[in-house]
Amino acid sequence: MNRTGTAMHSLPALIRRIQERFEKLEQIGSLGNRREDGFDRPAWSDMETAAMKYIQSAAEKAGMVSTWDGVGNLFLTTPGHGEEFVQVGSHIDTVPSGGNYDGAAGIVCGLEAIIPLKPMWERLNRKLQLVLWRGEESASFNAVCKGSGAAFGVCNPDILKHTNRDMSLYAAIQAQGFDPSFIAEKKATLGPEQKKKIASYIELHIEQAKRLETDGIPIGVVSSIRGTVRLRVEVSGEANHSGGTPMGIRYRKDANLAIAYMQVGIHEACSYAIEKGSDLVQTAGIVNIDGDFNKKHPLVYANSLTKVSPYGYFALDIRSNNTAFLTDYVKDIKKIIQERAKRFNVEVKITEILRLAPVEKLDPAIQHSIEASCRDLKIPFIEMPSGAIHDAALVAGQGIPAGMIFIPCRGGISHNPAEYASPEDLARGSQILSNVLYRLAR
Amino acid sequence: MNRTGTAMHSLPALIRRIQERFEKLEQIGSLGNRREDGFDRPAWSDMETAAMKYIQSAAEKAGMVSTWDGVGNLFLTTPGHGEEFVQVGSHIDTVPSGGNYDGAAGIVCGLEAIIPLKPMWERLNRKLQLVLWRGEESASFNAVCKGSGAAFGVCNPDILKHTNRDMSLYAAIQAQGFDPSFIAEKKATLGPEQKKKIASYIELHIEQAKRLETDGIPIGVVSSIRGTVRLRVEVSGEANHSGGTPMGIRYRKDANLAIAYMQVGIHEACSYAIEKGSDLVQTAGIVNIDGDFNKKHPLVYANSLTKVSPYGYFALDIRSNNTAFLTDYVKDIKKIIQERAKRFNVEVKITEILRLAPVEKLDPAIQHSIEASCRDLKIPFIEMPSGAIHDAALVAGQGIPAGMIFIPCRGGISHNPAEYASPEDLARGSQILSNVLYRLAR
Repeated sequence: MNRTGTAMHSLPALIRRIQERFEKLEQIGSLGNRREDGFDRPAWSDMETAAMKYIQSAAEKAGMVSTWDGVGNLFLTTPGHGEEFVQVGSHIDTVPSGGNYDGAAGIVCGLEAIIPLKPMWERLNRKLQLVLWRGEESASFNAVCKGSGAAFGVCNPDILKHTNRDMSLYAAIQAQGFDPSFIAEKKATLGPEQKKKIASYIELHIEQAKRLETDGIPIGVVSSIRGTVRLRVEVSGEANHSGGTPMGIRYRKDANLAIAYMQVGIHEACSYAIEKGSDLVQTAGIVNIDGDFNKKHPLVYANSLTKVSPYGYFALDIRSNNTAFLTDYVKDIKKIIQERAKRFNVEVKITEILRLAPVEKLDPAIQHSIEASCRDLKIPFIEMPSGAIHDAALVAGQGIPAGMIFIPCRGGISHNPAEYASPEDLARGSQILSNVLYRLAR
Repeated sequence: MNRTGTAMHSLPALIRRIQERFEKLEQIGSLGNRREDGFDRPAWSDMETAAMKYIQSAAEKAGMVSTWDGVGNLFLTTPGHGEEFVQVGSHIDTVPSGGNYDGAAGIVCGLEAIIPLKPMWERLNRKLQLVLWRGEESASFNAVCKGSGAAFGVCNPDILKHTNRDMSLYAAIQAQGFDPSFIAEKKATLGPEQKKKIASYIELHIEQAKRLETDGIPIGVVSSIRGTVRLRVEVSGEANHSGGTPMGIRYRKDANLAIAYMQVGIHEACSYAIEKGSDLVQTAGIVNIDGDFNKKHPLVYANSLTKVSPYGYFALDIRSNNTAFLTDYVKDIKKIIQERAKRFNVEVKITEILRLAPVEKLDPAIQHSIEASCRDLKIPFIEMPSGAIHDAALVAGQGIPAGMIFIPCRGGISHNPAEYASPEDLARGSQILSNVLYRLAR
């Protein structure tokens, strides 16, 4: 065994074990016989619990000790010395028709990072703990990071009323044998004493984008987690005959045209901010075609091929890892949108749908450990922000030193039955995770 | 009586007569008790026929002679000398939930232009003829100017298979007692001899836009009728996570963003062409929201707030009164769209939905007569192109000297129950029409 313990199991053996774990998980909540059929393991469902119990049994077989907290998060701990823990965690729920890697990759790689260290467990200064958070995906009950939020008492109690498939979150938690009053009363399932013992938290996750794949890099060392501001921009113009109405704002109030100029204006602002060195991504994912919104706003169907467009809208997702920048930038964007509305003689209404603060800096010491591990194992890496929200953002928000490792997923595809991470990439992530845990716990 | 006969009836009397005619028409095909409830008089329907018969009876009462042609167009002729006719015409069908002025304004004003000239009928060198064309609106049977087209044998026989409310055009023509074989065999209902006798054709129509209203001008002297090229532009990108995917085309293939840049690019080209003096209007009336198209192309619903947009489209209506310019301009537009697609690393498919040639120049002598009449009556006018297609375009296409007069409609609104032209504007149009008919027939 080398100094970091990572060579304990050969790489082919590790790949095989990871494959076996995923084959087992593929039988829980699968929507068909094949991985490509997709998965459905909603928050606080029998399927989520079954997947957690499979990991529990595997960890117990390896000699780890399990504890469920009040809301049903699962903690799997190595025996050993020291009061403190080094946590590795993620979630195992999926979006409807999701893949088997978003979340589960972190759990399986975490387990397979801890088990090879078994000969070292008793010699480490900190215990290792695999954490399975409940219900990270907002697709169930329309709230994100529900399990980790409940662990630290920061969930909004209102979410207990949210429903998924006609069952409230309150009822779903009870149905799995746990206690929703922790969320109702904003009472942490992990008390201050327990929280103090978490020396560090690390999470491995598939990238859910294709930067690593595009650039041919196997590991992303996550430096920050982007916050998000989401806007809906509604534009009201005036319907007029497309053939008879002269061009120009004296005659035309063209919603579609104003929206195009708004998009280009804010895209130019985005490019400029990135050139100046800001961390920023900005996406108008929806133009006129949000099915649920259109049910309530049928005015959008008044548009026709031979009419100047009377109404339209777009939805904008703006993300950055820098809180101050994000705040200022969104103000600038709103100004540009207002200015374009004026220029095209249309009315505009901007609604802020969501605002989540960034984690500006994940723990530098952990980040350093991950990079040192990559160098140890001669695996190329890049430093990158996480564009998506993860449980790590919630843990970091508690002042706990936190870090994240990204591995590639095929085509960047996620929240989709086609989601896939190769056993080789998973094994490589697992090796680095193992190395990092050793560094943080020794 | 003055030299043009226009003062025969006082303006208040004319206004009253026009109001009475519209009140009668309001009872035929009305969707409720009030004008604001809208109208439904489809092509070759009982309602269209009833409206035509009301005008027939009014014209016969005034001493005019009526003839129906083989497909059901109605010709109402003054007794008098000369072999030739001066025609004034329009249609009386409506779009579903349409107004009572699009088409009917030309019929009522035409009738009320001819009747005051009654003392002159026998002294004119040409007969006056009011023409009621069947089925101008493409909303029924998805084909435009069906009656005037059949009169000159230029309808595509395929349209007989088109259906409206589950009845084919073939059956609808038969149901009104007329003969669809004229269209089936492309046989003109007006033979060459009859066609030769049409010395000139003039049509009064509501503007269906708000240029006259905006500029406070009561009369538009139509100089040309714009042709149209309609394109559907489909853009295929790639879905990616909106938070995790860096900006730039190395990572993103953003359909919505490419479409915005395409719209801005072609709008700039449009502004430039207008600055250079070209007649042009261009409208992207539809972005992602054509209900019928989306039923067949549900891919557009794959867009979401947190995804880089994988697919989108827009539909474009480009109109000009200059055939050569329109042809070249559409080529330029396609190039700009292709260039933007390349720039944003997306695939693009451009489909031409429709191409109708412009009437570049309506008859200069008729235009001159209209302008002279406006000067006579001290009514301000502007020369303007017609953006919409009318029966006059079809008649002009037959080499018959043709002209058009536009009167304002409130807010430019048409094809809508809110469509409205004031009795004063209608009467003013009628006076000018009367004056012009006198000039052309004397």
